Amino acid sequence: MKDYLHKANVLLEVLPYIKQFHNCIVVIKIGGEPMITDELKEFIAQDIVLMKYVGIKPVIVHGGGKQITDLMHKLGKKSVFIDGLRVTDKETMDITEMVLTGMINKDLVGLINHHGGKAVGISGRDAHLIEASKIKVKKTDYGFVGEIKKINPTIIHSLIEQGFIPVISPVGMGEDGDAYNINADIASGEIASAIKALKLIMLTDVRGIYKGKGDKKKFLSTITKKEIASFIKQKIIQGGMLPKVKACLSALQSGVSKTHIIDGKIPHSLLLEIFTEAGVGTEIINK
Amino acid sequence: MKDYLHKANVLLEVLPYIKQFHNCIVVIKIGGEPMITDELKEFIAQDIVLMKYVGIKPVIVHGGGKQITDLMHKLGKKSVFIDGLRVTDKETMDITEMVLTGMINKDLVGLINHHGGKAVGISGRDAHLIEASKIKVKKTDYGFVGEIKKINPTIIHSLIEQGFIPVISPVGMGEDGDAYNINADIASGEIASAIKALKLIMLTDVRGIYKGKGDKKKFLSTITKKEIASFIKQKIIQGGMLPKVKACLSALQSGVSKTHIIDGKIPHSLLLEIFTEAGVGTEIINK
Amino acid sequence: MKDYLHKANVLLEVLPYIKQFHNCIVVIKIGGEPMITDELKEFIAQDIVLMKYVGIKPVIVHGGGKQITDLMHKLGKKSVFIDGLRVTDKETMDITEMVLTGMINKDLVGLINHHGGKAVGISGRDAHLIEASKIKVKKTDYGFVGEIKKINPTIIHSLIEQGFIPVISPVGMGEDGDAYNINADIASGEIASAIKALKLIMLTDVRGIYKGKGDKKKFLSTITKKEIASFIKQKIIQGGMLPKVKACLSALQSGVSKTHIIDGKIPHSLLLEIFTEAGVGTEIINK
Amino acid sequence: MKDYLHKANVLLEVLPYIKQFHNCIVVIKIGGEPMITDELKEFIAQDIVLMKYVGIKPVIVHGGGKQITDLMHKLGKKSVFIDGLRVTDKETMDITEMVLTGMINKDLVGLINHHGGKAVGISGRDAHLIEASKIKVKKTDYGFVGEIKKINPTIIHSLIEQGFIPVISPVGMGEDGDAYNINADIASGEIASAIKALKLIMLTDVRGIYKGKGDKKKFLSTITKKEIASFIKQKIIQGGMLPKVKACLSALQSGVSKTHIIDGKIPHSLLLEIFTEAGVGTEIINK
Amino acid sequence: MKDYLHKANVLLEVLPYIKQFHNCIVVIKIGGEPMITDELKEFIAQDIVLMKYVGIKPVIVHGGGKQITDLMHKLGKKSVFIDGLRVTDKETMDITEMVLTGMINKDLVGLINHHGGKAVGISGRDAHLIEASKIKVKKTDYGFVGEIKKINPTIIHSLIEQGFIPVISPVGMGEDGDAYNINADIASGEIASAIKALKLIMLTDVRGIYKGKGDKKKFLSTITKKEIASFIKQKIIQGGMLPKVKACLSALQSGVSKTHIIDGKIPHSLLLEIFTEAGVGTEIINK
Amino acid sequence: MKDYLHKANVLLEVLPYIKQFHNCIVVIKIGGEPMITDELKEFIAQDIVLMKYVGIKPVIVHGGGKQITDLMHKLGKKSVFIDGLRVTDKETMDITEMVLTGMINKDLVGLINHHGGKAVGISGRDAHLIEASKIKVKKTDYGFVGEIKKINPTIIHSLIEQGFIPVISPVGMGEDGDAYNINADIASGEIASAIKALKLIMLTDVRGIYKGKGDKKKFLSTITKKEIASFIKQKIIQGGMLPKVKACLSALQSGVSKTHIIDGKIPHSLLLEIFTEAGVGTEIINK
Repeated sequence: MKDYLHKANVLLEVLPYIKQFHNCIVVIKIGGEPMITDELKEFIAQDIVLMKYVGIKPVIVHGGGKQITDLMHKLGKKSVFIDGLRVTDKETMDITEMVLTGMINKDLVGLINHHGGKAVGISGRDAHLIEASKIKVKKTDYGFVGEIKKINPTIIHSLIEQGFIPVISPVGMGEDGDAYNINADIASGEIASAIKALKLIMLTDVRGIYKGKGDKKKFLSTITKKEIASFIKQKIIQGGMLPKVKACLSALQSGVSKTHIIDGKIPHSLLLEIFTEAGVGTEIINK
Repeated sequence: MKDYLHKANVLLEVLPYIKQFHNCIVVIKIGGEPMITDELKEFIAQDIVLMKYVGIKPVIVHGGGKQITDLMHKLGKKSVFIDGLRVTDKETMDITEMVLTGMINKDLVGLINHHGGKAVGISGRDAHLIEASKIKVKKTDYGFVGEIKKINPTIIHSLIEQGFIPVISPVGMGEDGDAYNINADIASGEIASAIKALKLIMLTDVRGIYKGKGDKKKFLSTITKKEIASFIKQKIIQGGMLPKVKACLSALQSGVSKTHIIDGKIPHSLLLEIFTEAGVGTEIINK
Repeated sequence: MKDYLHKANVLLEVLPYIKQFHNCIVVIKIGGEPMITDELKEFIAQDIVLMKYVGIKPVIVHGGGKQITDLMHKLGKKSVFIDGLRVTDKETMDITEMVLTGMINKDLVGLINHHGGKAVGISGRDAHLIEASKIKVKKTDYGFVGEIKKINPTIIHSLIEQGFIPVISPVGMGEDGDAYNINADIASGEIASAIKALKLIMLTDVRGIYKGKGDKKKFLSTITKKEIASFIKQKIIQGGMLPKVKACLSALQSGVSKTHIIDGKIPHSLLLEIFTEAGVGTEIINK
Repeated sequence: MKDYLHKANVLLEVLPYIKQFHNCIVVIKIGGEPMITDELKEFIAQDIVLMKYVGIKPVIVHGGGKQITDLMHKLGKKSVFIDGLRVTDKETMDITEMVLTGMINKDLVGLINHHGGKAVGISGRDAHLIEASKIKVKKTDYGFVGEIKKINPTIIHSLIEQGFIPVISPVGMGEDGDAYNINADIASGEIASAIKALKLIMLTDVRGIYKGKGDKKKFLSTITKKEIASFIKQKIIQGGMLPKVKACLSALQSGVSKTHIIDGKIPHSLLLEIFTEAGVGTEIINK
Repeated sequence: MKDYLHKANVLLEVLPYIKQFHNCIVVIKIGGEPMITDELKEFIAQDIVLMKYVGIKPVIVHGGGKQITDLMHKLGKKSVFIDGLRVTDKETMDITEMVLTGMINKDLVGLINHHGGKAVGISGRDAHLIEASKIKVKKTDYGFVGEIKKINPTIIHSLIEQGFIPVISPVGMGEDGDAYNINADIASGEIASAIKALKLIMLTDVRGIYKGKGDKKKFLSTITKKEIASFIKQKIIQGGMLPKVKACLSALQSGVSKTHIIDGKIPHSLLLEIFTEAGVGTEIINK
Repeated sequence: MKDYLHKANVLLEVLPYIKQFHNCIVVIKIGGEPMITDELKEFIAQDIVLMKYVGIKPVIVHGGGKQITDLMHKLGKKSVFIDGLRVTDKETMDITEMVLTGMINKDLVGLINHHGGKAVGISGRDAHLIEASKIKVKKTDYGFVGEIKKINPTIIHSLIEQGFIPVISPVGMGEDGDAYNINADIASGEIASAIKALKLIMLTDVRGIYKGKGDKKKFLSTITKKEIASFIKQKIIQGGMLPKVKACLSALQSGVSKTHIIDGKIPHSLLLEIFTEAGVGTEIINK
């Protein structure tokens, strides 16, 4: 009986959070890395389904860089990166789209549905969701690497209203209908802005943002926009963390209330972020 | 962190129950007794609010015999019972209605609202919810003791659709608009039938139904309709338990799937009943 | 036949008023006094049902000071008034709520329903309708006497849309969920403002407002806001008339078009006010 | 004041009828004759508007034989009748349609609108309302005299839902889109059946149905279907009364509850029929 | 097969126009003249039905001056015109309304319905669509010639939403409910403005607007507002073309995007205007 | 002008077909082969968009066997077929899903969107659309080759209602959420049945069904169910044509009105099938 009572108390402890996020949209960016172990993928799917059942409206955006590289290797194709961007010829784009939309997306959809959710996986080409154009960079021709021109969120709202969980792969559509590879972090930020999400959570493979470097680095559970700017200048924030941070900033500017960078490798980090006071990871706040 | 993980696991353990009862109506009869301590009342209100937020549609029916007797005493009026029924003259009826509709009902509404729910308290006279007529008993004139002629559930559905939690006091309306005192157990059973509830839970001040009597009695977590019939014959089930059992049987007959008699004195017994495998109390099953 | 024709003519005479008030909300404050005779109560209920059937949307707010005092007497509790306000300890508040919500409210609901309406009686604690806080007066502690912080009118609109007649008892809810006694006149004014009523009618036990005092007093069928201000200064308007007048002024300021103070003791004064050119009582106009 | 009270009493006397017909459809056939004096037309328009405002849904079907004959005379065209039916060549049909749809219909619409209703006049050609075909009679070619094949009532329901009062002229549409002259009595019966009206009222220029003939004739306020059959055999019911009676019978058979033949020359006979116990005219009942 | 392919190509050629006008309202004014041959009337009806089926929302306004004059002649009544306006006594108004609303309107409705559309013919008196007042001209009393005071477009929107094609005859309603004759060109412009049409097309009996006069005149496929002003000054635009041009200008000012004056005598000129690049006739543009 | 008139006539010739299919659902199965040339793919996309704009509701199901084999080759994996079914291990299933859902599906979506449609590509795993289980064949273990257990068409209806064109890849979901390869012909038949399509059109790489074999074979534009049965017995219908024919039969049995097997290699064969009398290919009829 004592055990039961304890259970009841846990439920009542999370009630304030359930109330707070009731009927709110939460955009969750899932990077390629946290999904690598099957167990972690199960956990994430469970967390999403639970969120949905207690009245939250999750919208998933996923990446998949690592898996793209894997398939390219298998096909004997070499990935060329210039300044961190993959040069994407037509064949590479086909591989990219197959991996993102045909494998990672459906894998997630299958897991969520298996745990009792009703997920629908789409890409940015569906319903003109992500209008894209070729990125403009001096000198280098990156091929089918795109930047977002416009988000048309009708399909997302329509799926949410019908009780579905949208799972979005970051492929954009050019004017000619062609596919463009879009940075998943940036896509999640723009989508969160366009659908007026309450929260944007980035599931990554690191704990969050640290102050300083090396031995002296200290974990930050909260960071302001100002500090971010200074950290970028000092190159404390750099590499793969840069687009994540930028997506958070742009979401905050467009009215998203809270943005978080958390560690997807911690089991159920999503639930902990939503349903506990402390949360996990770093929150970037609008100051 | 371990503690957090434990919390996540508790949430995921209840997920199957949340799924099962999603969007379902659960009628909860709250007797006068379990509500006597302020702490228990708080627990019940919390449980109801939690149920609501995770997608269940609770409908509350309450009693209040004890509190009626109290006010009558204070007013120097003696309660006369014949065969377990209170003889109810006009003045007694006024007192009854004031206590049920004006005190106990609003007390519950206040508690639920305080915990973040949106309760609306009505009586069976509102919106013609409970059409009643004077009970017909040979010889004795019980005055304003009524039996249910018809339930008009429109107001309940309308409140549920708008996201409110209906809290119903068991006063019926006669043809002339007058108030009639209705047995709260019977009312909860009829209401559960009329609104096609999935479940009827009776919060009482006993653990449930026992087999045998005195020293030899043994608690039953499940009982069939057949056994009930036999127990009634043997007078194992009698007194205040009779209308509860009858309400359950009538609800089962009208399509309610599950009916339970549980102990409201156990903290959070409502949550335990809904969200654990074992449940608490006795389930009366349709066999 | 002549008689029939006369009947037809009466109907056609009221047609312009039916047109004018079609689909409009009219808030009717019913004081404790006009309801004292059973016949008058019947008349008021009939008038409300007729209004409803010809397309007007009546919303009732009632008082009940006299009946509260009566029950307190019966319970051997003395009413203490300071500056016209009843000092309201917890026990007094319980009595107040039982009388207002459990007796007067349901009495009205029963009568309206008996005459073919579909009334639903609620109090300000239901659906968080009247958020209240303890009045702040220097020195005196009035206990559970409250002032209105906010009206949440969702429940009223929802009842109206479903074809119900809301009947509201003036009990507010504090932050802790507790009941507070609210002045019914003030409540009717605030509710009329919040639901954008076209008209506020106060059924009282006097004919309306008079100019002057004693022998020289002269009845006014119309009075401006300016005149009101001057009458209050001169103490021509005082006592129980003050909150009525103030409720009217506040309603006018919030967009209610017309406010009336009429004599509930005149049979069918409600109908006469609505359906005749002359009306009865005093209209306070927005000048 | 006494006068006012009397007025209130009249209103309350009609309340039971308002309740009874609330939200019900009443089809009113207006013959050409009762409309001849301007005063009577005004009365009928007023009655219809009043009915609408107290919650009844009137649907008007009108005739106009006399006015057609008038215009034909003016145009120097002779009306030829064979067995009571007007032989209708193309030119006669044009005249018929102009008079019915372009004059009488709009005249009624203008009057109703002037009294505050929102009438919309249509003919049976609009929205395919009345599908017709040429009547089949041995030997005689009646030209554009049609019989009803099917009623498509969508447009009527759509107008009613939007709060409009449909006013229908009895012109049907053949397969080729051409106009056919339809008997207005028959049309009103078929339309009442198709839209599941509660009541069909035929405004004529006679008091109703009489038993016997000449000096011995006796007015009947109620008549059964059986009696009708016998009266038709005996030729007590004949001529212009025949289609009226047949329309009533067919409406009764299709579920219309009550059918009446009343005298449109009595001022406000419509209101009297609806709002008084006795009614005026003859009711044909379903026995 | 080649022929089939050609057919497919024609369909695909018009696809861009179908897309462009999808779900848009197009107001089409049909003058009395283009409708004179039965073949042309058939073509216009076909074109309207096709437009409707490919997703455009046509709203028809028609004239009928010639046909009015014809009936007046037949009735031995002389038409008196002063400054281009017909002096309209009560009898003339009756004739006007019968011809417009009872003949031309229903003729169009019958044709459209015959070709598979669902037309509903109304006049400006229905549903208070066109509120009119007597035109004010010094000295001359034109009788029932009216000018538009207000358009109440509810009925049009309601018909469109239900999938009907509104066909409107230009008769307005005065304050007293009486009919007033309204210039059909002006009516079409005001209606297009009130219902926020995308396009206003005037089907006339001339090709469009010419520059210059006599031998030197040159057809203009586009004309600006400025040029119009200058042409009116020079009396190049005059007579019956004036109200057409003015209706276009007023529609442009109220937000209608495109206005056209085209020749209804060219078979299927409506379709050509909508579905070809070149169009036919003159477009008046908003410059 | 003559050319324009011709264009108008083509449009009017297709009007009857547009009417006939208005608001109807047409399921189109697109095989892997007809899509091989870029020009043909463009034509199909154009045809689908045109169908949509003239009021038809197209639902696309596609195959892709050839493209799967291609990618397997590139990855150095050999396709093993037993009795015409590809043995599908986990890796093969991943490749299959990537090709179908991530390449062919999105290719189609991109083309349709480029031509102005709003396509949304989903697979049978999305929203639990196609519930599948492993096929049961004696002896052989085909791995992830599935058969359909149930179609849950909610997502299709929801997309159609919002104006989207669903494009479905034939991957089913097992109980564990895993992907199963489903025969696209069978899937299109089951989906057409589940969503009550009016028509099922199979775009293949052959002209249709022939009578007889070799030199003696004769093309059939219509074939009955009986003849089909006999042809299957005689092995005239066999191989890849078998599942197509079976899908048609099953669709006919479930209420689909018309089923067609047509040659996708003929330019615009879809349009021709829908918009011409003769049609192309073979119709299987319900006899």
